[in-house]
Amino acid sequence: MKKVAIGVDIGGSSIKLGVVSPGGKIILRDSFLTVHGREKLLKVLLGRIRGLKREAERRKLKVAGVGVGAPGPIHIGKGLVYFFPNIPGWKNVPLKKLLERRLGLPVRLDNDANVMALAEFCYGAGRGATNLIALTLGTGVGGGLVINRKLFRGPRFSAAEIGHLAVNENGPRCSCGSHGCLETYVGSGYFIREVRRRLGAGRKSILRQWIRQKKILSPRLVAQAAKQGDRFSQEIWRETGEHLGTALAGLVNILNPDTIVLGGGIAQNRHLLFDAVTRTIRKKAFPIASRSVKVMPAALGVDAGVIGAASLIFSKEGTLKE
Amino acid sequence: MKKVAIGVDIGGSSIKLGVVSPGGKIILRDSFLTVHGREKLLKVLLGRIRGLKREAERRKLKVAGVGVGAPGPIHIGKGLVYFFPNIPGWKNVPLKKLLERRLGLPVRLDNDANVMALAEFCYGAGRGATNLIALTLGTGVGGGLVINRKLFRGPRFSAAEIGHLAVNENGPRCSCGSHGCLETYVGSGYFIREVRRRLGAGRKSILRQWIRQKKILSPRLVAQAAKQGDRFSQEIWRETGEHLGTALAGLVNILNPDTIVLGGGIAQNRHLLFDAVTRTIRKKAFPIASRSVKVMPAALGVDAGVIGAASLIFSKEGTLKE
Repeated sequence: MKKVAIGVDIGGSSIKLGVVSPGGKIILRDSFLTVHGREKLLKVLLGRIRGLKREAERRKLKVAGVGVGAPGPIHIGKGLVYFFPNIPGWKNVPLKKLLERRLGLPVRLDNDANVMALAEFCYGAGRGATNLIALTLGTGVGGGLVINRKLFRGPRFSAAEIGHLAVNENGPRCSCGSHGCLETYVGSGYFIREVRRRLGAGRKSILRQWIRQKKILSPRLVAQAAKQGDRFSQEIWRETGEHLGTALAGLVNILNPDTIVLGGGIAQNRHLLFDAVTRTIRKKAFPIASRSVKVMPAALGVDAGVIGAASLIFSKEGTLKE
Repeated sequence: MKKVAIGVDIGGSSIKLGVVSPGGKIILRDSFLTVHGREKLLKVLLGRIRGLKREAERRKLKVAGVGVGAPGPIHIGKGLVYFFPNIPGWKNVPLKKLLERRLGLPVRLDNDANVMALAEFCYGAGRGATNLIALTLGTGVGGGLVINRKLFRGPRFSAAEIGHLAVNENGPRCSCGSHGCLETYVGSGYFIREVRRRLGAGRKSILRQWIRQKKILSPRLVAQAAKQGDRFSQEIWRETGEHLGTALAGLVNILNPDTIVLGGGIAQNRHLLFDAVTRTIRKKAFPIASRSVKVMPAALGVDAGVIGAASLIFSKEGTLKE
């Protein structure tokens, strides 16, 4: 019987599941809207996992285990969820044990940024990399690191928080309590706040007209304006890429990655962002390190969560050895 | 016969050598002023190494190899010196091969910052660490990284350039071409330049009087003033510690080191610097990572270069495997 794994991608608005082949292909899919309340969510989740397992077995596939990618602070070693920032009702939940007991399958838990990095490293834009930096650019900035071909989680399982590397020690206050972290320049909330601030200061832009027409101001809208030649929006995107490039240049000097993978909503505006990022890295990092680094868009898109979670079961990474 | 190694610490003003035991003790020492001219320097160096080797053999010690720590850009894999910033006459010198051929001993070459990190990791303040950050704070800021109990050199042997992590993207121009690198806040040249700038802007300080008395303005003099209660000098040191703490907080979030070792001239002003560094890390990094990190003064002082160079021969690190 061919072996497969089930990957679960827990998100604040929806939960995605899939039966994944060892080659990283999603064979069966499922998803549901994130329900609140711990027991309620667990019940639905278990039902869906069991459903996928039955369907896999019907197809003569053997489910080797369940990998779970979860947002927010978790203790990977213990398989414990401290809490979910965007899902009420979860506090100190031993999710790994709970699922293992009720499913009778090995379960691996990791945070969503590590899972995304692992997916891109095993099956996506980071295949063949030795040292990889993966960033998910959304509301927050999630980071994952592969060092010497192994996911680097750190002894406290809290490494790779690249969103909280300072770009400017005198910069805006960050949700983490520090100042001028990368996230305060690239996180979508801060991005939009900065656009509003500059528009409020009187900058000309087609965005003013669109806002009057009740369009919702979002990174995507600013990207659309930039593509139509709006100078203000182009400048915002270029600066965002330069901030990101500055943080990455520092990491290129320190970690010599061969590949940097950028995913998430903000990174979808590729040609606006990637040029500025790459140019800034080349300009600011040492040539010997920056010449050899490739900056790549994430290849697996919204599937990275499910595929990466499943790869916790397939890869040595699932053993949690550092 | 007991095995030993010879460590060579090449510096811009002097070259130190020692016969080192596998326990990290210097059994025999030698040193000479750095002579210019490649062949001249090589000749003196070979003579001194042979002298130490003879003396070691007279004492029934077997020299297993020679480790060399060198400043500036070198290709560790090839054992090649690209150039020495402060020693004229060296360009693309295959130092490892040259020494091996003339000595008939295995030779390992690494840069001085890696060598210092390795010394502190094997025998000094970083003993027992899993993830270690070591910084040498001098004219420049040299960095060494131990990740998962191994020296991390990067695939291009150019990793750990922690002095060139940005603290403020809008900061002073750095010798590397970028802006606001850690080195522009903590390197002794920049440190003194900033002191001069502020004094020039009219700040009160006992340093004015000392400069009139022909004392040479140095980090040590500013430390002396701070210890005597000079507010201006205390503020300079506190800010230097905060800049350094900001850079290290970012790395604590990303690498989860358990130990940070600070050495070099600037770090000798311990109580002025270390408080501010530790406080800033605790304030800016995530608690789970910052709570467990120790910031330690380098334990081996000026001997770190010789001991670390010798440990290239003893440790697995000498094999240059990543």
